[in-house]
Amino acid sequence: MSHMHVAGSVHAEVSSPAPVWLTKPADVNALTAKLWSANTVRGPDGVVTIAGQPVTALAKKYGTPLYVIDEADFRDRARRWKAAFDPWRVYYAGKAFLCGKVARWVAEEGLFLDVCSLGELTVALRAGVDPATIGMHGSNKSVAELRAGIEAGVGRIIVDSADEITRVESLAAERGTTVKVMIRVTAGVEAHTHDYIATAHDDQKFGLSINGGAALVAMMRCYHSPHIELLGIHSHIGSQIFDTNGFEVAARRTLKLFSQFREATGSAMSELDLGGGFGIAYIKEDTPSTAEELAEGLRDIVDHECRAFGLPQPKLSIEPGRAIVGPAGTAVYEVGTVKPVDIGGGLSRRYISVDGGMSDNIRPALYGAEYSATLASRVSDADPVVSRVVGVHCESGDILVRDEFLPGDVAPGDLIAVPASGAYSRSMASNYNHVPRPPVIAVTTAGTEVLLRRETLEDLLSLDEGLE
Amino acid sequence: MSHMHVAGSVHAEVSSPAPVWLTKPADVNALTAKLWSANTVRGPDGVVTIAGQPVTALAKKYGTPLYVIDEADFRDRARRWKAAFDPWRVYYAGKAFLCGKVARWVAEEGLFLDVCSLGELTVALRAGVDPATIGMHGSNKSVAELRAGIEAGVGRIIVDSADEITRVESLAAERGTTVKVMIRVTAGVEAHTHDYIATAHDDQKFGLSINGGAALVAMMRCYHSPHIELLGIHSHIGSQIFDTNGFEVAARRTLKLFSQFREATGSAMSELDLGGGFGIAYIKEDTPSTAEELAEGLRDIVDHECRAFGLPQPKLSIEPGRAIVGPAGTAVYEVGTVKPVDIGGGLSRRYISVDGGMSDNIRPALYGAEYSATLASRVSDADPVVSRVVGVHCESGDILVRDEFLPGDVAPGDLIAVPASGAYSRSMASNYNHVPRPPVIAVTTAGTEVLLRRETLEDLLSLDEGLE
Repeated sequence: MSHMHVAGSVHAEVSSPAPVWLTKPADVNALTAKLWSANTVRGPDGVVTIAGQPVTALAKKYGTPLYVIDEADFRDRARRWKAAFDPWRVYYAGKAFLCGKVARWVAEEGLFLDVCSLGELTVALRAGVDPATIGMHGSNKSVAELRAGIEAGVGRIIVDSADEITRVESLAAERGTTVKVMIRVTAGVEAHTHDYIATAHDDQKFGLSINGGAALVAMMRCYHSPHIELLGIHSHIGSQIFDTNGFEVAARRTLKLFSQFREATGSAMSELDLGGGFGIAYIKEDTPSTAEELAEGLRDIVDHECRAFGLPQPKLSIEPGRAIVGPAGTAVYEVGTVKPVDIGGGLSRRYISVDGGMSDNIRPALYGAEYSATLASRVSDADPVVSRVVGVHCESGDILVRDEFLPGDVAPGDLIAVPASGAYSRSMASNYNHVPRPPVIAVTTAGTEVLLRRETLEDLLSLDEGLE
Repeated sequence: MSHMHVAGSVHAEVSSPAPVWLTKPADVNALTAKLWSANTVRGPDGVVTIAGQPVTALAKKYGTPLYVIDEADFRDRARRWKAAFDPWRVYYAGKAFLCGKVARWVAEEGLFLDVCSLGELTVALRAGVDPATIGMHGSNKSVAELRAGIEAGVGRIIVDSADEITRVESLAAERGTTVKVMIRVTAGVEAHTHDYIATAHDDQKFGLSINGGAALVAMMRCYHSPHIELLGIHSHIGSQIFDTNGFEVAARRTLKLFSQFREATGSAMSELDLGGGFGIAYIKEDTPSTAEELAEGLRDIVDHECRAFGLPQPKLSIEPGRAIVGPAGTAVYEVGTVKPVDIGGGLSRRYISVDGGMSDNIRPALYGAEYSATLASRVSDADPVVSRVVGVHCESGDILVRDEFLPGDVAPGDLIAVPASGAYSRSMASNYNHVPRPPVIAVTTAGTEVLLRRETLEDLLSLDEGLE
């Protein structure tokens, strides 16, 4: 089901401004299992607990807003992805959320790690991740970034342009070494949720075009370079993808390229990375496939296309990020202001302002992303009303949860928890309006641990050269 | 003119993918005066200079990406707004861009200052701004923020909800003091560029509704509170507004409220703030009104509506932010990768990747904002081609300038300058992909000065508790 808000006439009998996809829950206190990390339940006192840690206690200890990662859930998802795709390699996409401890969890669970900047590479290396398990992405890597990756001995650099091949060759020659390279290609597939579009081109900055011929040219160039070991091809088709539909065309076009390469060189390429973008459930209506379903589907697709082209199976890899850390994370906010707003037609929308906002989660404003929410510090018997959870920022687009049924008695001091908040929230956080960024903590049944500490005003102002 | 991209069939004879509003410049090296800060020119050697400082030298000294504020231009705009609106009070909206030195410039030029968080208030106070000249905004101010504002003695707190009035009363009572308050109201006007919509309601988090009656209730409550001195009403109607059309309805509805209040109490309200949102030119097609034109238009509107209601002229104020700092700022990037991308129909788009992106300017991704750009480190005789300037981030939406004619020979190592970058860019910057944030420097003919220093990887990683 799409999350698009359906525009159109409002029927006179409609008594709440809920979008058509949002249905009033039978029990507003119930937690929909698929939205929450595995160890999140409502305790006997009504307080939401994560791995046995009540969010009220967490909020008291660490303050709000607060991001909580259910460590066992993260590790379990990592293991499930690895097991489902075995023997394919699973690279955790660090851009979803990365810090020192998460990098170590990834390594401990036997996953590989994707980084896409010098900063992410530095986190991985300082956390002790084996460089051979690191893949290095980026559409415009600087010479300094490439040098750092080559010096560290990363397992593969996914090159994205002819300019980058020149740079890699030059750096490798300078060091008298050979660099392992994948080539990022565009297969003319754009996938999102259930929909995908297959075109002859990709109008975006990433990769080298299969259809336009740039991909094969780059492959031949790398193949003949004395300083490059060409491992294979990388194809990424989109984000928040719910099924394998879009991968068929991508695999066909990519493996056709393998076949052309074999014709041209007599050699078979050894590796294929099908990218990431596997979706998660942000709201009840989201129905992402499981890792097992995706693995089965992708295996079938690759088997089928390899047979069609008479190719041996390449070594395969995928790159989930959101699918591992997204559902493991919960954001906890404190309510500051509640305001009913007349929105015409006899309808009123309840605006619940919390102490975070677009500075810690810009996805609703940036992508129109939908989220769910629950009253976390207690249960309530009050009738659920359609509410909008908004933040502290001086901007009307500062919305965290556009539409959700919440108890009608939500009041200042209550805690609101937003599930599926582990990916692309804290990792994209800003200091808009000079708001310091919230901490990220890990919880287990054994206790709590700080992953990223809370930013202080002193941290924030330390860049300002005009203050004493 | 709207910046909407017109969808539709591409004529066979079209040879470039330019949107319909983008015309090929007669001279691609020329700087369109209205887009650039007043002291930006191309020097005899072809290098763009700001207040006599060549961007090549600035890039060498401070690195790229780099935000450059033309201090004289900022101060001149501040003075022009103050002069045009005199004796109205002009509050600089700090959320557009604030740091210690900018806060002092604002004070030195005789402007007042709006802050909307404890962080912004702290910057202002530490910079030595007179608290009496500070207005304090925010739709969900915490008790700590309100306490800090009251203790500092800010000139006015713009209250936004019934919950906040309760909080202000309680804090004022606690201190045995009286707090000066404006009430933010919603007048049912949404304005943007040339368009505005007048409705009976506002479906957004800010303010108290005039039409729904919440505004008058709040006014009466403040009026009767022993701890609140009600100064007046605040109405903000939108952002990037090019003319005064939307203000007529807002002023009428707001002054009708003044009239109702006088009827109810026998007292006249003394202050009216018409908010900010005054637009600037990001691209050649943008035609914002000048401060003088806006002042004349707003004066006429207020005069007319006051006469209509038989009201004395209240003390008036406005809150430009972007209109002062936006045009004063220029972003400077270094080109890393240039890639022609086949986009079908025989067309090719030139993707120019620079060393910044959505982490330092999220406006194109967040609002679909259009920007202009120029090759800044040299002139070029090459034929201009439609180019897209993109960033370093692992996201296809990481676009800085969607469509611009740039010389066909732009190459790695060139500098690209983006004008009108002073507002809502560095102030909304993130560390997405672990990319440290760029510095902001001020330039004058006398030299250069750092406002915000460049963030280092060490700064960024200092929050990570999992690294040694």
